[in-house]
Order: sequence, then C-alpha cells, then structure tokens
Amino acid sequence: MAKLNYNELRYKTPSLSPLQRKIHDIIFEADTFWGKVFDITLLIFIFLSVTVTALDSVESIHSEYASFFNTCEWVFTVLFTIEYILRLYSVAKPLYYAISFFGIIDLVSILPNYVSLFIPEARFLSIVRILRFFRVFRLFKLVHFTHEVDLLLASLKRSVKRIAIFTFYVFIIVFCIGSIMYIIEGPENGFTSIPVSVYWAVVTLTTVGYGDISPKTPLGQAFSFFIMLLGYGIIAIPTGIVTSEMIVPKKEKITTQSCPYCCKEGHDTDAKFCKYCGKPLND
Amino acid sequence: MAKLNYNELRYKTPSLSPLQRKIHDIIFEADTFWGKVFDITLLIFIFLSVTVTALDSVESIHSEYASFFNTCEWVFTVLFTIEYILRLYSVAKPLYYAISFFGIIDLVSILPNYVSLFIPEARFLSIVRILRFFRVFRLFKLVHFTHEVDLLLASLKRSVKRIAIFTFYVFIIVFCIGSIMYIIEGPENGFTSIPVSVYWAVVTLTTVGYGDISPKTPLGQAFSFFIMLLGYGIIAIPTGIVTSEMIVPKKEKITTQSCPYCCKEGHDTDAKFCKYCGKPLND
Amino acid sequence: MAKLNYNELRYKTPSLSPLQRKIHDIIFEADTFWGKVFDITLLIFIFLSVTVTALDSVESIHSEYASFFNTCEWVFTVLFTIEYILRLYSVAKPLYYAISFFGIIDLVSILPNYVSLFIPEARFLSIVRILRFFRVFRLFKLVHFTHEVDLLLASLKRSVKRIAIFTFYVFIIVFCIGSIMYIIEGPENGFTSIPVSVYWAVVTLTTVGYGDISPKTPLGQAFSFFIMLLGYGIIAIPTGIVTSEMIVPKKEKITTQSCPYCCKEGHDTDAKFCKYCGKPLND
Amino acid sequence: MAKLNYNELRYKTPSLSPLQRKIHDIIFEADTFWGKVFDITLLIFIFLSVTVTALDSVESIHSEYASFFNTCEWVFTVLFTIEYILRLYSVAKPLYYAISFFGIIDLVSILPNYVSLFIPEARFLSIVRILRFFRVFRLFKLVHFTHEVDLLLASLKRSVKRIAIFTFYVFIIVFCIGSIMYIIEGPENGFTSIPVSVYWAVVTLTTVGYGDISPKTPLGQAFSFFIMLLGYGIIAIPTGIVTSEMIVPKKEKITTQSCPYCCKEGHDTDAKFCKYCGKPLND
Repeated sequence: MAKLNYNELRYKTPSLSPLQRKIHDIIFEADTFWGKVFDITLLIFIFLSVTVTALDSVESIHSEYASFFNTCEWVFTVLFTIEYILRLYSVAKPLYYAISFFGIIDLVSILPNYVSLFIPEARFLSIVRILRFFRVFRLFKLVHFTHEVDLLLASLKRSVKRIAIFTFYVFIIVFCIGSIMYIIEGPENGFTSIPVSVYWAVVTLTTVGYGDISPKTPLGQAFSFFIMLLGYGIIAIPTGIVTSEMIVPKKEKITTQSCPYCCKEGHDTDAKFCKYCGKPLND
Repeated sequence: MAKLNYNELRYKTPSLSPLQRKIHDIIFEADTFWGKVFDITLLIFIFLSVTVTALDSVESIHSEYASFFNTCEWVFTVLFTIEYILRLYSVAKPLYYAISFFGIIDLVSILPNYVSLFIPEARFLSIVRILRFFRVFRLFKLVHFTHEVDLLLASLKRSVKRIAIFTFYVFIIVFCIGSIMYIIEGPENGFTSIPVSVYWAVVTLTTVGYGDISPKTPLGQAFSFFIMLLGYGIIAIPTGIVTSEMIVPKKEKITTQSCPYCCKEGHDTDAKFCKYCGKPLND
Repeated sequence: MAKLNYNELRYKTPSLSPLQRKIHDIIFEADTFWGKVFDITLLIFIFLSVTVTALDSVESIHSEYASFFNTCEWVFTVLFTIEYILRLYSVAKPLYYAISFFGIIDLVSILPNYVSLFIPEARFLSIVRILRFFRVFRLFKLVHFTHEVDLLLASLKRSVKRIAIFTFYVFIIVFCIGSIMYIIEGPENGFTSIPVSVYWAVVTLTTVGYGDISPKTPLGQAFSFFIMLLGYGIIAIPTGIVTSEMIVPKKEKITTQSCPYCCKEGHDTDAKFCKYCGKPLND
Repeated sequence: MAKLNYNELRYKTPSLSPLQRKIHDIIFEADTFWGKVFDITLLIFIFLSVTVTALDSVESIHSEYASFFNTCEWVFTVLFTIEYILRLYSVAKPLYYAISFFGIIDLVSILPNYVSLFIPEARFLSIVRILRFFRVFRLFKLVHFTHEVDLLLASLKRSVKRIAIFTFYVFIIVFCIGSIMYIIEGPENGFTSIPVSVYWAVVTLTTVGYGDISPKTPLGQAFSFFIMLLGYGIIAIPTGIVTSEMIVPKKEKITTQSCPYCCKEGHDTDAKFCKYCGKPLND
C-alpha cells in the first residue's frame, strides 16, 4: 500500500513523459512481463560477459580465441551502452542516477573498451569489466525466495554489532600474536616483518594455513600450538553468534496475537482458537 | 497402507511370471530373508570389488598382484553381469530399468572388462568400475537407523533452500574476490588468470588453504587478511542454518496428542483446547 | 548407595587381607587422603616420564642429556614396576587385572627398559613408553568437574549414532570424490593412486588443506571448487548435531518437580512456590 | 550509586591535592569531556605508534624512512613518558600503580628508546614497544556497546569451564596422536621428534594444515585420514558449547519483572505468583 502511494507520487513528477515512464517500468521494475524479460536478458548478458572476461584472462585460451572474445566484448559493450543511455533517459534526475553506486558501476564497466580505441595500451583496463558482476545484485528483485533471504539477512543484521566487536578483538589479538611471533621467529625464519607476522597470525587463527610461512623454531611451534587451540575456540564465537540469532525468528514466528477473551499470548500463526480458553481468535 | 496397494497393483501386471516375482522379491526388496541375504552379499562384493580397484591403482601393489587382481575382477564382473541380467529379467519393463540411474551405473560398471577383451588398450576404462560404489546407496534399505537418517535428512532438506541462496551469494562473492585479487597480484605472483584467482578465493574462504597459490605482495596479503576474517564469519552461516533446523524437531517432539474432535495434531503441551476447532483436549 | 553395597560385597571376598585392602584403597580409590596423595604423585610421575620421553626424541637434546634421561627413565621404570606389582598384589583376581586394558598398558609401558637390558638393539621399543600417557585417563576420578564432564559426555553420547551415520556417508562421498579426482588429474599431477586421491579428498573436505597434493588441471580445480563449497556445508552437520544435543540438557535442568496442589510442571530448580497457584513446593 | 560512594571515599584520601584529582579525572576516568578527549587522543597515539613500529620492521620501508620513524618514535616516547609521570603523580599510591599490570606495560613501552641512548646496540629492544598495543584494552571504557560486550563475555565465561576440560582432553589426544604418528612416519618423513609430531597433530586436528609436515607413508596417510575425520567431530564441540551458552541469555531476557513483595527477579513470563515468596505478581 505504502509502495503504491510512493509510486503515484513519483509518477506525478512532471518531467517524465509516457515513453520515459514505460522504459522506466521495463528497466527499473520487475513487476511487469517485459520488466522480467528485460531483467533475465540482462542477467544472461552479465553472466556471458563476465565468463568471456574470465576466459580471456587465461593465456592459452586468449591466444586462440582473442578475436572472437574481442567481438563478443564489443557486442556486450554496445548493448550495455544502450542500456546505460536508456537508464539515464528514463530517470527524472539523470545526474542523481549517474553518481549513484550502480550508476558509476554501469559507466565504469563500459568505459574500458572506448578508452582502448584511443589509447591502445589501455588494454589492461579491461579487467575493470569484471565489476559488471556486481550488477547482478540489482537484479535480486527477481529472486522468488525473498522471504528466505530476508530471514537470513535479518539474523545477520542482528548479529552485525556483536560480530563487529568480535572482529575488533580478533584484530588486536592477531596483532599481538603477530608481534610476539616476530620476536620469537624473526626474519631468518620467514617472519620478515611485523605486518607479515600479523598476516601469518590471521592465516593460522582462521585455520586457513597456507604454509607459505610456518614456524621453524621449537619455541615458535610451541607458541603456535596454543594459538591454534585458541583459534579452535575463537572460530566457535561467530558461529555461536549467528546460530543463536537464527534460532530466534523461529520462535517469533509462533507468537503474534493475543486472545481477545483471556488475553493470553503464545498462539501459533495457524491457530484459530485460543488454546487456553477455547474462544475464537481474531485473524 | 499406500505401499501395500501399490504392490498389489504391480503384482497384477500380467507380464510377471511367478519366477520373475520371486527373483524380483530377492533382488529388489529387502523384506524377506533371502532378500536380506542377497543385499548383504552384494554389499560385500561391492566393497571387495572397490577395494581391489583401489589397490590395483597403486603402482607398487599392481606390479606384484596384477594377475590376482585381474582374476578377482573377472569374478566380480561375471557375478555383477548375472545380477544385471536377473534384474532385467525380473522387471516388468526392462528398458525402463535399463535407462534408470542405477540401471546405467550397473551396466557401465561391468562393461570395461568386456571392452578390454576386444580392445586391449582400453585398460584405463577400468577406473569406471569405481562407479560401482554408488550402488551402495541402493542398499540403504538395510540400514536400521532409518529414523535417525530421516531426521538428519529432514533437517537438511529444510535448510536446502537457504543453503542454495547462501551458495549463490558465496559464488558471486568468490568471483568478485578472485577478480580483485587477480588485479592486485597478477600473473607474476601465481594468480595466472581469473579462474585461477577464483579458485584461490574458494581455497581461502573455505579455510582449506592449500598454499599452492598464496599472496606475495603486501597489498595482496592485506586484502587476504580481510578475506580470511570474512571467511570466519561466512563459515558460521551454513552452520547456523543447519543447527537452527536441527533444533526444531526437538520442539515438535513436545507436541504429541491429537484433538479428539477434529483429529488435528500439533498442539503445545500446555494447550487445553484445540487451537483449530476450539473443543477441549484430553489431558 | 548402590556403590556402597557393591563395595561391601567386594570386601567380603575372602581372599583380601587387611593390608591388601589398605593398598587397594590407596592405589585404586581416590576417596581417602592417601589415595589422593598417591593419585597426584602418580599423575606427576606420568607427566614427567612422558616429558622425558618426548624430549629424548629430539636429536639435539638427546645427544646432550642422553645419560641423564636414561637415569630418569630407570627411576620411573622402577617406580612404575613397584606400582604394577602392588596393583597385582592388592587385587582379588590378579589375572583379571593383568589382562584388562589398563593392566596391559601398565605392563607394556614398563617392559621396554627391561627388554633393552638383554637386547640392546631394542632401544626403539622405548617409544612404547608414551602409552603411559593413556594412564592419565584412569586418574580422572580426581577431577572435580565431574558434573561438567558428564554433561559433555552425555550430549556426545546422544549424538554418537547420528555422527556414525554422518561419518559413513562422508566415507562413501570421500571415496567417490577421490576416484573422480584420480580420473581427472591422474598420476602425473600427484594423484598417484586412488587411495592417495581419497586422502586428498579428506584433506580438502575437512578444510585441512596441507597442499602436498593439490589440483593442477583447470578441470581439477573447477571440481575441487565445488568440493570445497560442499565441505563448507558438510562441516556444518556435525556442529549442528552436537550443538542441538547440547541445548537439550539446559531445558531438562529447569523442569524437575510438579506442584503438589495444581500439579503443574515447569518450575525452576530454585523455585520454592508454584508459579501458577502460589502454593509451596516440596523440596 | 555504589560507584559514586566509592568515588566519594576515594576523594577523601588526604594525599590527593585538587590538581591531582583533576588530572586523575582526566587520565583515569572517561566520564568528563576532557577525560574523553584524553582517551581518544591516547588511542590515536597508540595506534600511530604501533603502526610506526610495524612499518619500521619492514626492511624496505625502514631503509627509506628510518630517520622519520626515529623522530616519530621520540615524539611518542616523550608524550608517553609525560603521561606515565602524570599517572604516577595523580595516584594516591604511585608504587601500587607502578607494579600493576598496566603500570609495568606503560613503563616497559617507553624504556627501550632511553636505553638505546646509552647502549646503541639495544635497538632490537624497540620491538618491546609493540606491547603498547595492550594499552588499548584500558581504553574500552569508551566503547558504547558495553551491553553487547557484557553479553558476549558472560556467555564465554559460562563456557570457560567446559572449554578448559575440552582443551585438556584435546591436549592428551593430540599428544597420543603425535606419538603414534612419530612411530608410524619416523624422522625420515619429517616427523623428526615427538614434539614436532605433536605440533603436526595440532596443525591437523585444528584443520589449519600448513603442509610443512605431512604424512608420506600409506599407513601415515590412512591414519591421518581418521585423525581428520575426528577433527571434524572435535571442532564441533567448542562450537556447541559456546552456541548453547549464547542461546541461554535470550531466554532469560524474557524474565523482566521483579516481585513487589520480596523484590526478587528471574520470573518466567507465564508466572502469576512469585516463585520465591508465593505472593501474587503484577501482570
């Protein structure tokens, strides 16, 4: 309801012609048939374009299909350029869109090809195209598991504060561990500087363990012995935070209304009668 | 009840002779004594056959026991061929079975030996035999912890949707991280292409951390510092999803009685009246 | 109570003299003062003995302190031999004790030194002494967090069945993944045989990731991409099982008695009055 | 309330002049405006000082900015020295402060520079400055998520006992695994001594997996196969402990009201009578 009113208000903005409104509906909304067709088509083109960029970065594939990939890239660039112009055209305040997060991404991901026309050396800019992949997030209106996503995000949002504190503590702990390890092992064992030792501490504490740097001295090994056991306990904390937040909504789902006769609460959502006094519940 | 009716219906299919029915009972069912004997025997032969294939792939063992393993393999192949023919014979629609998932696995896992008779070079095909191991899943009728498995699978099934969304997000995140890392580190530090960088991103985010590719530049190490902390948080999400789903059935256990009037179930333990029809519940 | 009766019964076994009973109380029980002193002393000697064995295995330390460690080891061996003889002496059925799990460990951990007297080459047997460490578990009677340990073990015991099923599934999955990877990568990329590939699959799925074997081909990397994401989900399952079992006892702790007047349940352990009708509760 | 009384009491200590009190308020408290300004300034200086020490440890940066970093370091040292003197001056019992944990850290983190004036070779002492980072913990009074931190710490505190037991078990298990692996693999495969093997066992069991030491023999690989599966299960335990503790406070949150007669708290939401004194509760 609120959204409808908002839409009405927007359509009263005098600067939008019927054509602009039509294009806006197709490009920015996913409620109409053509809006959905547009979004799915765009999704496919983004995936194709990203795949082409990814494969083109492989040396062996690049040397063989370079011209084919180049053609593809130009097709994508022209299409995304048309889309970008239409977006600018169909919006009441083009500048406002142009400087928005997605507006910048849209622009930046079509620029490299045009730049390379004038400055051939700018080929390396092509990697910027990968940013197109971020545009997928705009298309999430399509996704039908909105409720599931909402639940997931809601429980993550509730844990953000606690996870931020946790990360801050981990940051300090990791810095202290790294510094101590720098003193213990020293540059001759691969711990060339404090930043590198801190990097090692994160690699160890998160149980990633590349092994590019690993303790060599007995003291360093004994120390990392305890660091790893500590990491065992620390990894339990974010899991605990997220899990405990995820369990909450299940309970909240159950309790919504109170009985109009005995005022007791705690009824399931599918309950039609009060489970305490047997009187009918309001819907 | 429903199953019985289904069985009755099937036995009325005119094409099955008493012998076919008997064989079908033994090979496809696990309810009768001989059915169980058959399943356990088959299980043992599958395990033996897979063990032989596995040991045969070890060069040092192969060079010593090659002929013994070859004999074993022929015994298994002949037995599995007989079993395959019996399965085809005892089924009302052999073609329907032959093109089913297990039908194809059954066929494919006996073919290599016969093929190698005519084309000796086809020895490498023998690895296909390992697919036999998948047949173990058909024999799970035997397992007596059905209830436990059901509970486990039920909670996994309930989380499948949320885990699918989660995996989709991880997929995009991993692609973006890989691309950024490709720009930061570049081919000279082992990040030879975007696919390889994405592979590194997965190895890091899942805390596997082989170390075959690891960041060399300070910027790359600083970036992976945050990626690893992110991985810390991300690994908590599937755990949270699965755990929160596993806790649910425990609560549902509490609800035991059904309404004596409308027969509906799912009442809380403290409910005195049916929440669906408002009639009093028995205590 | 039950235990007392059991003790009374045992003391009626005619074969035990007062001295034997006394020794038995000190060595096998931890209720008396001297029993506790004995257990703590034994604990210290076990730790010392294990530390000596561990340090003696370090080449540089061994070459310097070999004779000192040898003396220590003889002291420990003599002490543990006396203890072993006393255990045999104070027990009604010495043979029954000698063939028990701890009896064998006790014997095996003192033998190597005596054997090395006659067969000097048997030095390598000395490693067997490490088994002494298992004896620590016998001394857990001392530990005062018995209740906490019980709760922990109880929730683990309840999850054992589900974890067994889970491990069985993981075993089959790991075997199939290993076999597929053996076909994809082959011996030339380090996946020399199926057992080695299965080993790699476990290293990857459990997120250990040594990196001694890692996929080299693009297809192998793409495949392990999905294996690692799968591992992400799979690691959530045992966590979910254990966590959901650990949450249960908390609830059970709360609900113990029912109100003698209104018969309602769900009272906290510290409740003195019924929270529903206000009548006093029995203690 | 209690805190005010405590403050009043302290201000009655005769030895503190008005100036001392004023400085004490600014340096040790964070309630006043200047107290907050001081704490934030100090926080910034600590971060700057630690950053300088960290960057200075990087060889390439050190060779270029050595003199600049040296100047910075002297500025920080002088400032921290003034702060240290003010802290000593504004406290009723300077010696009591000087030998406290933070007092020693404060002193130790300014000493290296002064020592290096007289003994130029003491440069390596500069690493001790990193200890300054610990001082950040003193400034946590500033943090506004006190409630969140308290909840987090409370649930960790409740799990400390169980995690201690868990760690003790893991310690013994890890020692036994390491010893067995030392026997299986031996010094020729990198398992040079028992301590090193125990180090490997921790690296494996915590799923860190550096890969600096990894099993080479088939038996060692088969054994670590089971160790890794065990690690899978073991990592679930601390997670289970922490998670189950984190879920508890959510339930306690439900209990809000205190008995109007005996003032005790901790009643369930469905309680009508105080469970401690039996008097009716307000709704």
